[in-house]
Amino acid sequence: MTPRLVVIGGDAAGMSAASTAKKRCGDNLEVVAFERGQWTSYSACGIPYWISGDVEGPDGLVARSAPEHRANGIDVRLGHEVVAIDAAAGEVTVRSDGAESTVGYDELMIATGAEPLRPDLPGIGSDGIFGVQNLVDGQQVIDALRRGPRRAVVVGSGYIGVEMAEACLRHGLQTTLVDQAVSPMGLLDVDLGARIHVAMSAMGIDVRMSTPVRGFASSDAGAVNGVVTDSETIPADIVILGLGVRARSDLAAAAGLPIGESGAIRADAEQRVDADRHVWAGGDCVESWHRLLRRHVHVPLGTHANKQGWTAGRNISSAVLGDLGPVEFPGIIGTAVTRVCNLEIAITGLSVTAAREAGYDPEEVSIESTTRAAYFPGVAPLTIKMIADRLSRRVLGAQIVGREGSALRIDTVATALWAGLTVDDVMLSDLAYAPPFSPVWDPVQVAARALAGKLGY
Amino acid sequence: MTPRLVVIGGDAAGMSAASTAKKRCGDNLEVVAFERGQWTSYSACGIPYWISGDVEGPDGLVARSAPEHRANGIDVRLGHEVVAIDAAAGEVTVRSDGAESTVGYDELMIATGAEPLRPDLPGIGSDGIFGVQNLVDGQQVIDALRRGPRRAVVVGSGYIGVEMAEACLRHGLQTTLVDQAVSPMGLLDVDLGARIHVAMSAMGIDVRMSTPVRGFASSDAGAVNGVVTDSETIPADIVILGLGVRARSDLAAAAGLPIGESGAIRADAEQRVDADRHVWAGGDCVESWHRLLRRHVHVPLGTHANKQGWTAGRNISSAVLGDLGPVEFPGIIGTAVTRVCNLEIAITGLSVTAAREAGYDPEEVSIESTTRAAYFPGVAPLTIKMIADRLSRRVLGAQIVGREGSALRIDTVATALWAGLTVDDVMLSDLAYAPPFSPVWDPVQVAARALAGKLGY
Repeated sequence: MTPRLVVIGGDAAGMSAASTAKKRCGDNLEVVAFERGQWTSYSACGIPYWISGDVEGPDGLVARSAPEHRANGIDVRLGHEVVAIDAAAGEVTVRSDGAESTVGYDELMIATGAEPLRPDLPGIGSDGIFGVQNLVDGQQVIDALRRGPRRAVVVGSGYIGVEMAEACLRHGLQTTLVDQAVSPMGLLDVDLGARIHVAMSAMGIDVRMSTPVRGFASSDAGAVNGVVTDSETIPADIVILGLGVRARSDLAAAAGLPIGESGAIRADAEQRVDADRHVWAGGDCVESWHRLLRRHVHVPLGTHANKQGWTAGRNISSAVLGDLGPVEFPGIIGTAVTRVCNLEIAITGLSVTAAREAGYDPEEVSIESTTRAAYFPGVAPLTIKMIADRLSRRVLGAQIVGREGSALRIDTVATALWAGLTVDDVMLSDLAYAPPFSPVWDPVQVAARALAGKLGY
Repeated sequence: MTPRLVVIGGDAAGMSAASTAKKRCGDNLEVVAFERGQWTSYSACGIPYWISGDVEGPDGLVARSAPEHRANGIDVRLGHEVVAIDAAAGEVTVRSDGAESTVGYDELMIATGAEPLRPDLPGIGSDGIFGVQNLVDGQQVIDALRRGPRRAVVVGSGYIGVEMAEACLRHGLQTTLVDQAVSPMGLLDVDLGARIHVAMSAMGIDVRMSTPVRGFASSDAGAVNGVVTDSETIPADIVILGLGVRARSDLAAAAGLPIGESGAIRADAEQRVDADRHVWAGGDCVESWHRLLRRHVHVPLGTHANKQGWTAGRNISSAVLGDLGPVEFPGIIGTAVTRVCNLEIAITGLSVTAAREAGYDPEEVSIESTTRAAYFPGVAPLTIKMIADRLSRRVLGAQIVGREGSALRIDTVATALWAGLTVDDVMLSDLAYAPPFSPVWDPVQVAARALAGKLGY
């Protein structure tokens, strides 16, 4: 009998695994993918831009639809929720239209994703408080915005928070961003985060940092009408939660599968969760190995989900076909990028604080440079902070804040960091130069040169 | 007596060496820089954009003026041409205002740059045929354009040629580009070069490839009025030469200093030309070590000039102060970028042909991707060709052609190549992803994945 791969979850990691395995195995593998929602392979990262009106949705955010997957031989079942895993028996329990059934598998891929954190605060259950994680969430926010709210409060100032605050502003709402942190974009150091604060304020967003939320006020009908802080209740017709996400690992935990300290599923580098029992996992529901921290962390990002899904799918296909050796997902280094209020923000690796905690002896430098030659039209300022280890002189991290043309330079640093290059290597490496693209010393090399000098020669 | 550094040539390499050495040595080193022209530290790369009207010049192209250098303690002498080096005696002969004098040195930095190639063809001496290498050349072209020519012919389709053709078009001239090569931008493979051809034609430039120039026709008064090819004489009121440059190494050769096969000065990795006689060199007049070709090549680019100047200056200061060990300019890998007719063009490393000639066993792939998520406003197509060695799977090169937001991705490949990463490393490394910046698989990783597949797993 043809072996069967069952995939739980039809987004990035699940469908990458399904597609990669099916493409390699063809008729030698049956692939069944259960998705409790109505969409497959969609870009959750695009939801704030859909809500802001920058892009069309929800279908526009779908990279590959269920019919397209089916045309590739994958049995996608929408509206099917897996409610239990029996790893010993090799079967899952699936609920659809109120009925439950069991489906056996030879290989199981868990890609259950993550869900927005909802803090256990008074009034959290009021109507009009939204998380933003999947397309249903996105549609609910859009529907709510169409009902004509005047005042939005966004709680949390990570990616989703700052992107959603801008989206609300674009809809003409009086918008307040509230967070207990000192500065927005907590991954950035405070000095650079402060620039995000200034840019958001300049666009008209009321940014309230160092302000813990204590609860939510609501009308008699149960609709949220305020966000409670220590000093006041901020009026709100709609509240968006941007407090991060938690891995959906309950199903795996209930099945006795290993869960890491972060609460996400623990998979090995081959994306195996349980080798004996043929269970694999990837995406927002799993931990990833951090190459610099040298421990597992939970960093739910679409780019990791796709690569972990590819890794799992490739290894599943090799297990089925018995042809190739394993491939490994090599881990992450904390690279991320976003754009908010005309500022580009990018980060890779560790901050000085994180590096010190991880046992490095870090030094940092912060430099001002430009996106093009100083005399070239469209030139814009950018700031790069670079961090390196004093002993090895290896690059440990970088943070970039600047106008258009700034952020993607982080990939130069990320690649250098990935390869273990020193600041001296980066400073004199052969990067591209022409006046429309960079100063003659690329900003990354200006930073590396300054840091090399600070480390001593 | 305070030792003296004499610098020949006041542009990128010369003044980088002067500034770096003076900054470290202070009163322990006298620095005298002879520049035969009237400007120091200017951006030759910016000249086509000055001529096109994109940027202000000539002063706007000067990064650091002679008075600024003097304020840093460097004795800059404009209008002073060094006409001979006596390395045995440790002195140079300098001509200024028709008078010659000799100046002794303890350390000598040669940074004499390069000059446009002028082919030995009939009529090459006619008026109205211009090279574009320094600010005087640039001013002459601008003056000529102000005299109202109607028809421009640009000979040669490298960087300067394609940039100058666009500049002439922007001035409203009927513009023809002529080159014996098959496609423009000879560093690119023909399939990608053909796209430049199409883009230039679409903008209204008459591009004639595979067309050797046989000479230049002129009026009785000696003004150029045509460019002679095998089939016809193309009418021209102004002719721009974009045939590349040759190193100005005559002065060094006459002094018995080593000249490489390329005709440029041979310096070692510390930028020393003659260790016993305290002679250093850098910039467009020297060869550079190519890390992949494993031989010396002549690649005159401002970015190398600055870094070689820094290296020389740093080593000269260490020789004077006797404090630090040597630093080495680590060589080049052939990275370059430009923008022409709304296309961004970038390259690093080797083409398949060059890689094969250099003894590698190359494989290549060409992929189409986009500059942003497919659904994001402003998304544009780009093409990446990637080359790797079959045996080691190491990345050997890449070429990128695309619209805005394409070209700087070459730095990711350049850094990977610099560090010796394989296509497998690049494919799964942690690059930045967000919808405004890239698809969820960065185009560089799409290319690496395709190439990994082609190489076999």
